[in-house]
Amino acid sequence: MPRHRIQLINPNTSQAMTDTMAITARHIAGDRLDIDAVCPHQGVPSIEGHFDEAVATLGILQQIRAGEARGVQGHIIACFGDPGLLAARELAKGPVIGIAEAAMHVATLVATRFSIVTTLPRTVIIARHLLHRYGFYEQCAAIHAIDLPVLSLEDGSGTAQQKVRDYCLKAKQEDNVGAIILGCGGMADLAAELSETLEIPVIDGVSAAVTLLESLLNLGITTSKWGDLDFPRNKGISGPFAECLA
Amino acid sequence: MPRHRIQLINPNTSQAMTDTMAITARHIAGDRLDIDAVCPHQGVPSIEGHFDEAVATLGILQQIRAGEARGVQGHIIACFGDPGLLAARELAKGPVIGIAEAAMHVATLVATRFSIVTTLPRTVIIARHLLHRYGFYEQCAAIHAIDLPVLSLEDGSGTAQQKVRDYCLKAKQEDNVGAIILGCGGMADLAAELSETLEIPVIDGVSAAVTLLESLLNLGITTSKWGDLDFPRNKGISGPFAECLA
Amino acid sequence: MPRHRIQLINPNTSQAMTDTMAITARHIAGDRLDIDAVCPHQGVPSIEGHFDEAVATLGILQQIRAGEARGVQGHIIACFGDPGLLAARELAKGPVIGIAEAAMHVATLVATRFSIVTTLPRTVIIARHLLHRYGFYEQCAAIHAIDLPVLSLEDGSGTAQQKVRDYCLKAKQEDNVGAIILGCGGMADLAAELSETLEIPVIDGVSAAVTLLESLLNLGITTSKWGDLDFPRNKGISGPFAECLA
Amino acid sequence: MPRHRIQLINPNTSQAMTDTMAITARHIAGDRLDIDAVCPHQGVPSIEGHFDEAVATLGILQQIRAGEARGVQGHIIACFGDPGLLAARELAKGPVIGIAEAAMHVATLVATRFSIVTTLPRTVIIARHLLHRYGFYEQCAAIHAIDLPVLSLEDGSGTAQQKVRDYCLKAKQEDNVGAIILGCGGMADLAAELSETLEIPVIDGVSAAVTLLESLLNLGITTSKWGDLDFPRNKGISGPFAECLA
Amino acid sequence: MPRHRIQLINPNTSQAMTDTMAITARHIAGDRLDIDAVCPHQGVPSIEGHFDEAVATLGILQQIRAGEARGVQGHIIACFGDPGLLAARELAKGPVIGIAEAAMHVATLVATRFSIVTTLPRTVIIARHLLHRYGFYEQCAAIHAIDLPVLSLEDGSGTAQQKVRDYCLKAKQEDNVGAIILGCGGMADLAAELSETLEIPVIDGVSAAVTLLESLLNLGITTSKWGDLDFPRNKGISGPFAECLA
Amino acid sequence: MPRHRIQLINPNTSQAMTDTMAITARHIAGDRLDIDAVCPHQGVPSIEGHFDEAVATLGILQQIRAGEARGVQGHIIACFGDPGLLAARELAKGPVIGIAEAAMHVATLVATRFSIVTTLPRTVIIARHLLHRYGFYEQCAAIHAIDLPVLSLEDGSGTAQQKVRDYCLKAKQEDNVGAIILGCGGMADLAAELSETLEIPVIDGVSAAVTLLESLLNLGITTSKWGDLDFPRNKGISGPFAECLA
Repeated sequence: MPRHRIQLINPNTSQAMTDTMAITARHIAGDRLDIDAVCPHQGVPSIEGHFDEAVATLGILQQIRAGEARGVQGHIIACFGDPGLLAARELAKGPVIGIAEAAMHVATLVATRFSIVTTLPRTVIIARHLLHRYGFYEQCAAIHAIDLPVLSLEDGSGTAQQKVRDYCLKAKQEDNVGAIILGCGGMADLAAELSETLEIPVIDGVSAAVTLLESLLNLGITTSKWGDLDFPRNKGISGPFAECLA
Repeated sequence: MPRHRIQLINPNTSQAMTDTMAITARHIAGDRLDIDAVCPHQGVPSIEGHFDEAVATLGILQQIRAGEARGVQGHIIACFGDPGLLAARELAKGPVIGIAEAAMHVATLVATRFSIVTTLPRTVIIARHLLHRYGFYEQCAAIHAIDLPVLSLEDGSGTAQQKVRDYCLKAKQEDNVGAIILGCGGMADLAAELSETLEIPVIDGVSAAVTLLESLLNLGITTSKWGDLDFPRNKGISGPFAECLA
Repeated sequence: MPRHRIQLINPNTSQAMTDTMAITARHIAGDRLDIDAVCPHQGVPSIEGHFDEAVATLGILQQIRAGEARGVQGHIIACFGDPGLLAARELAKGPVIGIAEAAMHVATLVATRFSIVTTLPRTVIIARHLLHRYGFYEQCAAIHAIDLPVLSLEDGSGTAQQKVRDYCLKAKQEDNVGAIILGCGGMADLAAELSETLEIPVIDGVSAAVTLLESLLNLGITTSKWGDLDFPRNKGISGPFAECLA
Repeated sequence: MPRHRIQLINPNTSQAMTDTMAITARHIAGDRLDIDAVCPHQGVPSIEGHFDEAVATLGILQQIRAGEARGVQGHIIACFGDPGLLAARELAKGPVIGIAEAAMHVATLVATRFSIVTTLPRTVIIARHLLHRYGFYEQCAAIHAIDLPVLSLEDGSGTAQQKVRDYCLKAKQEDNVGAIILGCGGMADLAAELSETLEIPVIDGVSAAVTLLESLLNLGITTSKWGDLDFPRNKGISGPFAECLA
Repeated sequence: MPRHRIQLINPNTSQAMTDTMAITARHIAGDRLDIDAVCPHQGVPSIEGHFDEAVATLGILQQIRAGEARGVQGHIIACFGDPGLLAARELAKGPVIGIAEAAMHVATLVATRFSIVTTLPRTVIIARHLLHRYGFYEQCAAIHAIDLPVLSLEDGSGTAQQKVRDYCLKAKQEDNVGAIILGCGGMADLAAELSETLEIPVIDGVSAAVTLLESLLNLGITTSKWGDLDFPRNKGISGPFAECLA
Repeated sequence: MPRHRIQLINPNTSQAMTDTMAITARHIAGDRLDIDAVCPHQGVPSIEGHFDEAVATLGILQQIRAGEARGVQGHIIACFGDPGLLAARELAKGPVIGIAEAAMHVATLVATRFSIVTTLPRTVIIARHLLHRYGFYEQCAAIHAIDLPVLSLEDGSGTAQQKVRDYCLKAKQEDNVGAIILGCGGMADLAAELSETLEIPVIDGVSAAVTLLESLLNLGITTSKWGDLDFPRNKGISGPFAECLA
């Protein structure tokens, strides 16, 4: 069977973060999947709020379009707020998975409750809204913010990584949960180490999304085009994003 | 006291719909408020799904920026899905009101439950998600779709308007509700007639948003900049939307 | 346009508290609204539980009746438990707003989550029930009780006021919220000072109710008489409250 | 063991309905309990909305007071909206049970889901609010209104009774429920016949309340006076209800 | 009237715990009910997780069958997880009550909110799931685990009992609740003492279940056999449990 | 990489149904997974209620034990009620997936809402409880029962299959959903045909579970043994199931 080809879309413009996530994704994919790792050429260097998400969503949609033109069969939106997920599902032919939803789905298959460790406090509301929309709110015990920006994970100092470790330990000891979700794509490379050290499943959404996307491709199931996720109605978009529906 | 100046942002590019909503908004505002009515120069001609919302959100954010530069003190996002509402709240100094939330807030002040009459079935999920996020889900009895596109409200035939009337009557008779919400900015001019004919509050979000925005301005309260709706962090946006944070 | 005339009904018998709230209400109303400030002649001096609410509700209904006879066009129930709100909506021709609902509606327009600071711990359950009924439960992070009775706010010592300040500061720092609601009509005069000092919207329900009631009057919308808030069925009430339906 | 003495409080002023409910209550009580059946001297002849409930609540509180003076050990509020339940719990030394809550509690012990058959459509919202507050909302499949006033159950024609039968049959056949609750104290005498005819538990709140109140008395448990249901704070009530706290 | 005869089924194999619960149950039953107290001959000595519950459920079903053959009219499942409750309701002719649901129902009749004190932390999830299924989740403030196994309550040292006392005191002081539920059948004998000492209703599910079961028997209501709790379909069970449906 | 070996446990004793599901499972697994398909030697021939589930759970637990002894690395519980899922997660070293949860997880990744088509009406409550526990309740529009027993799917007549088709069509046309879940393991072989005919994702839990289990194995994540899904405490089980923990 020919291998499926998917793309991991980092919605921010950080090539370093794209590379980090690509390594994690390809490690999980092994020789079963080909993975393109892309990020928008223009947009925000990191996503830490609703405004950043709105700007990044356009880049995501352009990458969806570009990826399908290149022949990719499925898409991962690799930012923990799952920005633009439903818009991307409308636009894409193939299935689309967000790393937040992926991590949450996987966590609920191995634990009755989980906690999340994320970056800035201002992103907590985004995770909270997703928990409600996906239905996992009651299964989340707590959302912890390390109070450092996303890009601190790429500054080479290890400070952010140490705070992630500290909060995961705290979550394990105090939240009465069976699993911990890493609430930022930039933490993807920490999951294996933390799972082993803490002896509790520490779940990275990038890895989780790769395997869930693979599930859908193996099942031959893609986004339903019956109803509210049908392709966008062709109405003649004007302006810089016109090519999205060309 | 000098009059407050606000802007009504129609997120789609239809000047006709912008004009319709402006008339309604100014009628309610009387001589208490000055209202700029704007729409993006580029984007989607109507908003009927998540993709359309994503594209339109950028136009909204640009208008927020432009409006504040002109001195407007508050903003209305005049599309029933409240696209980009939280992003706009982050970006704007002044308060921002969506017409869906406005209609829902007002409905719950005059009835124990309400129904919504909207355009295409594919937009129902957007209203449903808003009901959950705002907390009004249990107070909404039903969402009815007339199954015609948004722009059919502007085609001059009156067909869409008649279907709105039919569904409002049906909602009154069958849903056991005290109020009906018109689920599209393009229906704004129907509310007065329908309220009178049906003898039940038929609520238009444009009017509702004007008065709620006026409330916030009179209270001297704007979006909290403490916490998750603080201004976007200045990180150097690149590309066509860089000017949003200039 | 002739000014709308509304009444603020303090459900307890404290003239001092009525006066405090009247000042706040008239300050917000400016020259746009005439405000009658009334309280029942008989009843409870403060409202700190369900029994107090039940007794006070009769006084509220009598004031609704009396106010409409005098020509007022809308009503505010100025006690944070919104006692008798739905009964008053049935009885009144004009719209009726409770100060708890008003504060909650306004808070959700400027912040993703809020906390409440109230008086006695025994009133917390009343606020909690309202949050559920109005749909704002998930948007409320915490309810703090200063553990002093309502009338301590009128004792001139400033002790209660200082505890309110302390709890507002605590809520700002610990609850991860963008706004704080003052959970007692007797705290109405503290909102402006606290908003300025704490640099976070501190919302007083009296002010909020004035502007929401003004919204409904400007919209020309009153309580729906279709369905469950229709006028009480005329069945011949006997006893001291017979005149309510005369 | 001496028999417990309880009182059934019919919150409306209909002696006929009081008598009907007394027969049902005493039939269930057998020789285990003494039951006083009372109704207020003044108030509303039937309860069909929030205003009626507010007026009736005062009569209930007076009967609580009077009953305890006579030595009754527990109280039933025999109107399906459970008017004044929490106020009564504050005021009374002994336990207080509402017939709506009683019927709902019992229904959930013998079926996974139930439907309710009530009188006027305008009372449906009251049942709905109770279902939410008590936690039984998801266990209620439907609330059916026969669309006749409460007192039609006492007019001797049998019309209302026949409509109750019709709706119970409809509920059995269409709602996929295991039990039906009669949503008005005036239907108490129909439960036995309907249970037998329909071969499904048809639950009357009056009977249910008698046995739940007996449960509490046998357990020696009454309303907790620790916290929010403690006795009303003694603040000197003025006016016609002053004697409630004398 | 002849006395009803019920059975208390301890789902674990501990005769000591069966005896403890029997004393409590018979104390409440007085001379109104005859109570058989039984436990399975084979199974688990204590129930501290889902696996234990699964094993114990078979023993419960066998005792239901055996009890009905002996003529008992109703059943109590005396383990706080209410294991096998719906299966038992299908199988039994008479009503079946679990001690967790019984305690929760009673608690909500005397307090607006309650806390639970249970044994091992791993059983907390079971209580949490029950709270959701029964609808009492919002009325439960906290679940405290003493972190000792169930059988420590039978070791004669009094250590577990002291920890229960400590946690009940903590719950009273910190959780803002009006009642406390003892979350293990083995704590049944502590309720009276704790209620008296703490001056707050401390509710034991065994006693509560006896009185609720008596309620159903006095009402003449048993599990609805219309719909989803009908007797199991007779399909020829094979293996060790074949006799359950013989 | 050596292939993972998993087992599909049909909880009923029908070899025909086991074979049907094995074909479906192996079709999806391709050459990536080895699949043992097993069913208990003793128990119930089909699962159509809580009693059946309770009996079947013991067989599931024995197969978990037996499978791990044979070296299988993960387990599928192939009955739409996910009987014994949490007990199995406690007992097993490897991950365990139920086919109901699997289908629901997959459905939410490709559609905003789904409907379920199941067998007997009495099983609807089981699906409903799962939807609540897993968090997918709001995403399920309807549960349709074809009103035929499980084994009618194996009677060769095609009657049940035709009713499944009819209800899937009805669900597509009336429920406003993007996907349909087949609510019985015995319908597994219909998903491909129905997806193609109806042009909407029709999801079979067996296939879905195979791919989700593969996801967990590829991620190297199994049930968390920290907390409430830890291995059962070893307390010396007696009786026929003693070997489960030997």
